[in-house]
Amino acid sequence: MFSAETLHNIVTEMTQNYQQGVNFFTQEKRQMPNRDSIIHIIMGIRQIMFPGFFDEEALSQTVPDYFLGHNIMKLYHCLSEQVTAALTQACAHKTCTEENISQETEKICSCFFSALPAIQTLLLKDLDAAFNGDPAARSREEIIFCYPGFFATFVYRIAHELYVLKVPYIPRIMTEYAHDHSGVDINPGATIGEYFFIDHGTGVVIGETTIIGNNVKIYQGVTLGALSTRSGQLLRNVKRHPTIEDNVTVYSNASILGGETVIGKDAVIGGSCFITESVPPGAHVSIKAPQLSITEDMDSESPI
Amino acid sequence: MFSAETLHNIVTEMTQNYQQGVNFFTQEKRQMPNRDSIIHIIMGIRQIMFPGFFDEEALSQTVPDYFLGHNIMKLYHCLSEQVTAALTQACAHKTCTEENISQETEKICSCFFSALPAIQTLLLKDLDAAFNGDPAARSREEIIFCYPGFFATFVYRIAHELYVLKVPYIPRIMTEYAHDHSGVDINPGATIGEYFFIDHGTGVVIGETTIIGNNVKIYQGVTLGALSTRSGQLLRNVKRHPTIEDNVTVYSNASILGGETVIGKDAVIGGSCFITESVPPGAHVSIKAPQLSITEDMDSESPI
Amino acid sequence: MFSAETLHNIVTEMTQNYQQGVNFFTQEKRQMPNRDSIIHIIMGIRQIMFPGFFDEEALSQTVPDYFLGHNIMKLYHCLSEQVTAALTQACAHKTCTEENISQETEKICSCFFSALPAIQTLLLKDLDAAFNGDPAARSREEIIFCYPGFFATFVYRIAHELYVLKVPYIPRIMTEYAHDHSGVDINPGATIGEYFFIDHGTGVVIGETTIIGNNVKIYQGVTLGALSTRSGQLLRNVKRHPTIEDNVTVYSNASILGGETVIGKDAVIGGSCFITESVPPGAHVSIKAPQLSITEDMDSESPI
Amino acid sequence: MFSAETLHNIVTEMTQNYQQGVNFFTQEKRQMPNRDSIIHIIMGIRQIMFPGFFDEEALSQTVPDYFLGHNIMKLYHCLSEQVTAALTQACAHKTCTEENISQETEKICSCFFSALPAIQTLLLKDLDAAFNGDPAARSREEIIFCYPGFFATFVYRIAHELYVLKVPYIPRIMTEYAHDHSGVDINPGATIGEYFFIDHGTGVVIGETTIIGNNVKIYQGVTLGALSTRSGQLLRNVKRHPTIEDNVTVYSNASILGGETVIGKDAVIGGSCFITESVPPGAHVSIKAPQLSITEDMDSESPI
Amino acid sequence: MFSAETLHNIVTEMTQNYQQGVNFFTQEKRQMPNRDSIIHIIMGIRQIMFPGFFDEEALSQTVPDYFLGHNIMKLYHCLSEQVTAALTQACAHKTCTEENISQETEKICSCFFSALPAIQTLLLKDLDAAFNGDPAARSREEIIFCYPGFFATFVYRIAHELYVLKVPYIPRIMTEYAHDHSGVDINPGATIGEYFFIDHGTGVVIGETTIIGNNVKIYQGVTLGALSTRSGQLLRNVKRHPTIEDNVTVYSNASILGGETVIGKDAVIGGSCFITESVPPGAHVSIKAPQLSITEDMDSESPI
Amino acid sequence: MFSAETLHNIVTEMTQNYQQGVNFFTQEKRQMPNRDSIIHIIMGIRQIMFPGFFDEEALSQTVPDYFLGHNIMKLYHCLSEQVTAALTQACAHKTCTEENISQETEKICSCFFSALPAIQTLLLKDLDAAFNGDPAARSREEIIFCYPGFFATFVYRIAHELYVLKVPYIPRIMTEYAHDHSGVDINPGATIGEYFFIDHGTGVVIGETTIIGNNVKIYQGVTLGALSTRSGQLLRNVKRHPTIEDNVTVYSNASILGGETVIGKDAVIGGSCFITESVPPGAHVSIKAPQLSITEDMDSESPI
Repeated sequence: MFSAETLHNIVTEMTQNYQQGVNFFTQEKRQMPNRDSIIHIIMGIRQIMFPGFFDEEALSQTVPDYFLGHNIMKLYHCLSEQVTAALTQACAHKTCTEENISQETEKICSCFFSALPAIQTLLLKDLDAAFNGDPAARSREEIIFCYPGFFATFVYRIAHELYVLKVPYIPRIMTEYAHDHSGVDINPGATIGEYFFIDHGTGVVIGETTIIGNNVKIYQGVTLGALSTRSGQLLRNVKRHPTIEDNVTVYSNASILGGETVIGKDAVIGGSCFITESVPPGAHVSIKAPQLSITEDMDSESPI
Repeated sequence: MFSAETLHNIVTEMTQNYQQGVNFFTQEKRQMPNRDSIIHIIMGIRQIMFPGFFDEEALSQTVPDYFLGHNIMKLYHCLSEQVTAALTQACAHKTCTEENISQETEKICSCFFSALPAIQTLLLKDLDAAFNGDPAARSREEIIFCYPGFFATFVYRIAHELYVLKVPYIPRIMTEYAHDHSGVDINPGATIGEYFFIDHGTGVVIGETTIIGNNVKIYQGVTLGALSTRSGQLLRNVKRHPTIEDNVTVYSNASILGGETVIGKDAVIGGSCFITESVPPGAHVSIKAPQLSITEDMDSESPI
Repeated sequence: MFSAETLHNIVTEMTQNYQQGVNFFTQEKRQMPNRDSIIHIIMGIRQIMFPGFFDEEALSQTVPDYFLGHNIMKLYHCLSEQVTAALTQACAHKTCTEENISQETEKICSCFFSALPAIQTLLLKDLDAAFNGDPAARSREEIIFCYPGFFATFVYRIAHELYVLKVPYIPRIMTEYAHDHSGVDINPGATIGEYFFIDHGTGVVIGETTIIGNNVKIYQGVTLGALSTRSGQLLRNVKRHPTIEDNVTVYSNASILGGETVIGKDAVIGGSCFITESVPPGAHVSIKAPQLSITEDMDSESPI
Repeated sequence: MFSAETLHNIVTEMTQNYQQGVNFFTQEKRQMPNRDSIIHIIMGIRQIMFPGFFDEEALSQTVPDYFLGHNIMKLYHCLSEQVTAALTQACAHKTCTEENISQETEKICSCFFSALPAIQTLLLKDLDAAFNGDPAARSREEIIFCYPGFFATFVYRIAHELYVLKVPYIPRIMTEYAHDHSGVDINPGATIGEYFFIDHGTGVVIGETTIIGNNVKIYQGVTLGALSTRSGQLLRNVKRHPTIEDNVTVYSNASILGGETVIGKDAVIGGSCFITESVPPGAHVSIKAPQLSITEDMDSESPI
Repeated sequence: MFSAETLHNIVTEMTQNYQQGVNFFTQEKRQMPNRDSIIHIIMGIRQIMFPGFFDEEALSQTVPDYFLGHNIMKLYHCLSEQVTAALTQACAHKTCTEENISQETEKICSCFFSALPAIQTLLLKDLDAAFNGDPAARSREEIIFCYPGFFATFVYRIAHELYVLKVPYIPRIMTEYAHDHSGVDINPGATIGEYFFIDHGTGVVIGETTIIGNNVKIYQGVTLGALSTRSGQLLRNVKRHPTIEDNVTVYSNASILGGETVIGKDAVIGGSCFITESVPPGAHVSIKAPQLSITEDMDSESPI
Repeated sequence: MFSAETLHNIVTEMTQNYQQGVNFFTQEKRQMPNRDSIIHIIMGIRQIMFPGFFDEEALSQTVPDYFLGHNIMKLYHCLSEQVTAALTQACAHKTCTEENISQETEKICSCFFSALPAIQTLLLKDLDAAFNGDPAARSREEIIFCYPGFFATFVYRIAHELYVLKVPYIPRIMTEYAHDHSGVDINPGATIGEYFFIDHGTGVVIGETTIIGNNVKIYQGVTLGALSTRSGQLLRNVKRHPTIEDNVTVYSNASILGGETVIGKDAVIGGSCFITESVPPGAHVSIKAPQLSITEDMDSESPI
């Protein structure tokens, strides 16, 4: 059996650890937003954006207005609970009253839902880009239903709206949920134009201050990132990630880093390129064959 | 509170969006196959392929025939429901009767289950390849139970059979499920030989028209892909992805693109290579040391 | 309907397959540890490590000791069940009695829980590294709650303790769970120092015999791996993965391979580098601009 | 272990039993309605009948029409699935086409939902009767939320509507669900007037051909039943249960049996009475004190 | 399909019904306590009252204090949420501030948990009464684990404490839950002495103002009730139910009604008696044989 | 907040209570059988007894043998776990080894499953009795699917078999489950003949040593019980409940008590009778009209 003394020692040491770093127990009424509820909200918005794909309810529509109206009210209710929690948790060291938070929540949620039709329009354009960009896609339906890159784009567009409305925690929880299920990590702060398509997607990273134009196509493993720092909080709010202009294609596993790096329109970046300086419009950049060393007839066990 | 007028406006705008792009509400009896049921089928097949690993039922086997027979009947029932749904949904613009769909479903399911023993044999060979290819593997049991690359291969082999039988939607839903949980995206249309092993796996992409021989070993982040296009649907059914011959090894994050690109037998492709042309048999390709720029004594904050 | 004859044939063939490779039905009392229970243990440890973030229970703390004491007892109970199962399953070909296994389990679990306070201390240092290393992080809370790299590090540190205590199966099941949800695959055998930070994380692979110093920062897609082998079991227990010294930064998609490869302290490895030989301290390695081929004004449909 | 021979014998004997009595396996496409779905429908109707009591959704109502409209559509969809199943299952020996069943289903469901407002009005009257009839009731809210007799009445009124529309199986499944949870067994065929109140309720039985007037109050354990028969099916559709006129009160555990038995208006039936003949209006019937034998000073262990 | 016009009509009529009787939508922030949470609290209290019977947690007790302390804190947290909800909902027409409700909640919960040890002592005495009163009981364990009468008594004793503390709604929700699962309906307002035993229990009703002494034994179907009234609210707070003195036994289906009815100590009430006047101490009351009419040789189909 | 001191006091007092009555914490490896698993076993047996009614699996039967064989094996596995737990828990004060318990379990389970076909035959006869005894029954299907009295009979017949095999706890847990959901409390020790029918059922109690012949019909609220005792354990194993001979009918709420009380064949017992002495064959017993006091024209508020 577990000895009582050992147990007491562990309890004592961990209780002491609680005093350090993060204040785990001090703020009784505050609490992180609820991750499950936020996922529920994402899924609920997906159901009204693409009715008939992710629910059975839409199938019995005599009057679509009732379906939409009721579901928006429900989602409004859920979201305002989470936004309230997030604002309360975030104002730890500020003076914000319940009254203020309630008004702020209402304003945010009202703006957010008013933006949904425009986001839906954007997503229908992203859908076109995906269909035209992938010969393996059998139909638009398949893209809506299965494509992780499209899912990540959908979640980003929702989360970005909340980011713009300065909602704490929730946008990042949303995009990390998409990250978990698609392998695509788009920071909700990024700015992304129309007709955006991420193919396959696993390993894509798009940083907070990235700016992406229209008709951009990105493959799996692509990083649009920042140069590394060890004292990161000083750079908060500085543009640290690149600008990608219209019609650019970036192949798998390429990395483009730095806030002043601009990839000019119509450029093509080859796979595995590591780019820290700007590329002119129309340029095609790649690690060309000459740089590759080819050696024949080696022993098959010698790895390279 | 949410104003009634704002709500009405959102409802109206989104209802209008429903008219565009995808026909969300028009086909009353049709419906996408059910993703949860398809996952259930994958898991059910895994249970009979590897009894004793993913269920408690197998542990009480007096007569294994009953276990197998009953579970196959259940899975047959589940799969035929989903195949019926998929065929119905797909024939939106064709003339296909319930009668036809029912016969087609029966034929597909019968063929599929008849192929299971052969698929099981293939998987036992893949298991050998993994065990012999990874010194970190403690046992074959560990590979069956934990290895994401093996799981992705298992799902691909199941999905590929349905792809060959021309089942719509379901094969892709299956492989995207594996993609979500393993980071490995194998298109169900790919052709893959015996003793196949993907190590670690995250970020691997294997395109629809890829052909892979026997004894091929692939690491995380490897793309066997197509060159990009903006008008993808014209290339449907064209061979767009590479051919990888027997005994090839491809290291992490390498990309091999194009339908005419052939990696000859026994070749080794180094990490991060970006290959758009064929490589002869036995060749070892890599970004060699000379191409790497090494600069010492830089300020540690300057990133590169 | 499914013909009875076809069904019988499938049953017969699969029953025959069961005779090969893995002994599926032979060992009646043995069983793999339960994956769901192991996930439950991970989540339970996370709740006591970071109270108030992943449960509602912590919010009602009159006396934190009760919270900690009770939850540790519950987790002890769960873990000892799984350790017993794992030891029993693993000793297939050895002579180990229930008595031995019970004593061994008790010793392991007692050591494991005694190590938790020290692991918690390490994680609070990792948290500092993440906060200082990422300007996009709004707060330490956000990192605990959302960052997949931090989650993978947490799971690794737990699993590593069990690996050191020679628990079979469970450490790997734990890290593969983290792999699934973060895209980060850290083998529980790896040795990792203080103030470790993985940013974004998808595609990171850290092999079993890797040694990592303090203050190391690693980006998405980085492999710290072994050279490939086709007869892997011979290399078991040999050091096959690199050593990364203090203060090293490795950018996205770089691969560093081989047991004798050492990346010297303060070095920076650029994105997509493929490194199979040691790099001196302070060196900055990258695929520099000259190696990139830039061609302007090409037809936009020609991919590279 | 369980011997294979024993197992085979059991399988054989039970397979033979399947040939008798009920045809368990013969009608492949038919199936009983789904009990869980029917419970779901009951609960869904309760939510729209008494919004704000059994769901959180109603709490966020900007526009109650959306709440009602959407939920009715959903319930319509659910109910029509179950009605279709019930009609299909019931027409085992008749000639009914899918076409017929579909039309019949639509007619039934349309009538049923059109009747809901009137049923709701009746229930608000039953609520008044309960509130005025029970000094222990603190509020109407408490009755809606907690009273099993009111719940049984609610389910009966719903089920009765479907009974009148000649839906097979479903009405009885509904009332047996209420029976399970309230102890009150009202056959859906019974006819019950306004302002009906069952107090406490456990053990109440109200038979299929019972007729109950307005303002009737019934206590726990009361049977309004039929005289026993051993060849029951001959009596199908014959009036076998009593008639209870307006303003009657029946105390606990009284039984009133027979199709020609009439309890006249304003009558009061005392507890435990066993009545098989009519009682005139205004009569008060009881097992009076003289019929009770009282013996004092007996040994306390002698039971009576 | 469901016609849009029919749907609109139903929506309109039901919306109008909402204006009557109960105010369904008017009080935005108020809400009934949550029934599932209340059940959760009952079950949680049962776990700490009878550790080792209804949970696995208790089995791993190194230090029982942690088990108790942590679970009481959790239950305190749950209960105070529900008490707050109940007080808020109940004060619809009063002026009560959040501040008041919060203080009141704290006082109630503190008193309630302080009373638990004494309630536990009472229950151990009820357990003795059941074991000594039922030869069919194999052990005290079986009574704790299976006996519905004991479960109903347990829930009553908990609910009664909250009733005494004037908590609205919750006590009744608790006893109605016990009613559903045991068939025993004990109003939380009843006063019940030590060593109480209800055998079998289905159909037992014990009214709000009943007073029961020590060592009383009651069988299934027994009513300790009030005389009927049609204007019940006038009688609120009046003693309407009987007094049962020490050592009384009441057999199955007997009814004892009225606030002034006293069953003297050591009395025995026979089955099916209907009693509306007091019975002296030591009396044995029954419907004796002479009152029963026995007729032989009737046709077996004639029911009586 | 909850004061730490109050909490400590409660913990201390309850810990002291644990020392009394029942030994809650002393026997570390013992544990009550799992109620949920036992319910699962009941439901599983129902599925194979009445295939096609309570599961979807049976619908896809190509070969019923597989369905039966597999499900019996699963149930055997579940039951033997619970029987082992029950035997272990029960032998608290005896000397029984794991070896003995394992052999005993195997013997019990083998006998139990071998008895299933005969039990199924009995149930098909009970089904006939119900169909012929109730004009409200539309079909045998409805009885299997909905009738609580039939469900209680089914559970009793299963539990009785385990009672005869001397399994502790489990038979009673089974019948109390049926009691909860049907209101019918049949002690598993009772002996019940063929063609048994309980109509409606709520409140029926049938004691442990009751003997019931063939073709007996019993209504709701009927007690076949024992005379009360205050020192019950002395009467254990004595016949305390009545004998009911063939073809007897007992109407609602009648009580028949005592181990020497015999109701002769073909007798009919009227509702609410309280019988403690034998009734000759063919007798019809009732509380006849003359014993009822009828008073007209009383004030409607005066209750009796």
